[in-house]
This record gives sequence, C-alpha cells and structure tokens, in this order.
Amino acid sequence: MAEPRWLSDAEQRAWRAYLEATMLLFDALDRQLQADADMPHGYYEILVRLSEADGRALRMSELATSTRSSRSRLSHAVARLEERGWVRRCVAEGDRRGQVATLTDLGFDVLAAAAPGHVETVRRHVIERLTPEQVGQLEAIGRAIADGLADTG
Amino acid sequence: MAEPRWLSDAEQRAWRAYLEATMLLFDALDRQLQADADMPHGYYEILVRLSEADGRALRMSELATSTRSSRSRLSHAVARLEERGWVRRCVAEGDRRGQVATLTDLGFDVLAAAAPGHVETVRRHVIERLTPEQVGQLEAIGRAIADGLADTG
Repeated sequence: MAEPRWLSDAEQRAWRAYLEATMLLFDALDRQLQADADMPHGYYEILVRLSEADGRALRMSELATSTRSSRSRLSHAVARLEERGWVRRCVAEGDRRGQVATLTDLGFDVLAAAAPGHVETVRRHVIERLTPEQVGQLEAIGRAIADGLADTG
Repeated sequence: MAEPRWLSDAEQRAWRAYLEATMLLFDALDRQLQADADMPHGYYEILVRLSEADGRALRMSELATSTRSSRSRLSHAVARLEERGWVRRCVAEGDRRGQVATLTDLGFDVLAAAAPGHVETVRRHVIERLTPEQVGQLEAIGRAIADGLADTG
C-alpha cells in the first residue's frame, strides 16, 4: 500500500476548525430546539422540508433526499413525528408501494412557533460571527463539498 | 415579542449549503469508517484525542471538552470502546472521583490502521473540492464560529 497522503498543517487546521465548530453548533442547535420546542434539530429540518413542498407533502424517498437522511433514520424520525400528530403518512396515489408524508396543521403551527428561536440561534452563532464576505465564502465552500458528495453518492 | 429577524437570501443560501454539505459529509465519514474499521466517526475522534495526549491518557472531563461531546454521550461511547479493549478506564491518581481514559496498545493499532482511509476520505470530499484559498477561509470561518460557541458555552 502507498504511503497515506496526510493533511498539511494548513489543511489539518481547517479540518479541525470546521469539525470543532460543527460539533459545538449542532449541540447548541439541538439544545435550543429541545428546550424551546421539544424536538431535536433533525425533526425541525423534516418539518421545514415538508412545509416548503407543494401541498406540504413529499414522498418518503424525496424527503430522504432533501434532508440528506438515510431511509432508516428518516423512517424512525417520521414515525415519532406521526405519534405527535405533526406528520401523517399515507399510501402514494397511483403507487401502492410508495408512502407520502404530509405536514398536519398542528405540525405547521408547531414549526411556526419553533422557527423564530431557531433562526435566532443560527443568526447568533453563525451569521453574526462572520463578515458578509465570509457568508459568501461559506456558501461557495458548502456548495463545492455538497456537490462533490451528491455526485459520488 | 419582536418580529423575528429572518435570514436574508444570501445568509439562507450559505446556511443551507453548509448544512447540506455537513449532513452528506458526516454520512460519508461514518460509512467509510464503519465499512473499513467497524466504528462510527465519533469513536475515531475519541481515539485520536487520546493518541495525541501525554501517556495517551485523558481525564474524562478533558476528553469531553476536546471532543466537544456531552458527558453522557462520551460515557456511552467510552464504555463501548472499553468492551472492545481499545480504551481502559481507571480512577485518577489523587482524585478518587475523577476517571481517566487510556488508549490501549490494541486501540492505538486499530487507530493506526483506520487513519489512512479516513484521511483519504477527508481529502477526497473536503480538501480536493476546495482551492488552497478556500481551505484558509474554512479555517477562519470554523474558528470564528467555534470561538463564539466556546465563549457562550
């Protein structure tokens, strides 16, 4: 086997800073949403995606793609959301094998109530820490990484 | 309550791109480490932190800080690592209430075997997607966010 190509010092610093920021940030987002809206960040993202879809409904396969979740993790989360009455699942029209998840009116209200606190947390911990130039850089960096991963699956 | 300060379009695009990249990347890192080294990314980070410490040992409280983990999540992970014989826990010298986690020789060998594949995955999905300038930008952005969160706890 070839000698592994270790990261340079600059690459290592960037990777560590990104990892550290992300671990701290995801913990902070989860803590705020758990405390104020009784849900983890993953549930919030599912409700957002449904709220933005036509008829507030998406096939489970589309929801998995748009939340970047594995099917098993998504199924588990949607089952919990259904128990809470925030989401309803039913068989897709014209495709008996497919399932569609729909945001309920209660789910929409819960999301609307949770959104201001969540957005404020993102603003405080991300946007206000960065210059407008860095916000643009973060978009370009995120897009480059996401596009590469979406290609390779 | 005041009108919530929603994100601007540019801020929203940056936040979504970062989230999307991070969800895809963390899945890819977990998949590679599970497939090639039978461990999730969180375990790998614990082993790395211990391998870099004096005597390859850290107090559990130090390990929680350096991996940015909650104490309960860390305790659970270290218990699993101990079952595998990769980490050993013992009472801290001079502090009967404290516990110290030590990387075993087996744990060190497992980490050494896992490292090349993990680093290659980080290189392929992150470093090679970015220009050297963007690598520097990612470090500055990550540091700004991490420092803000480390201050506010």
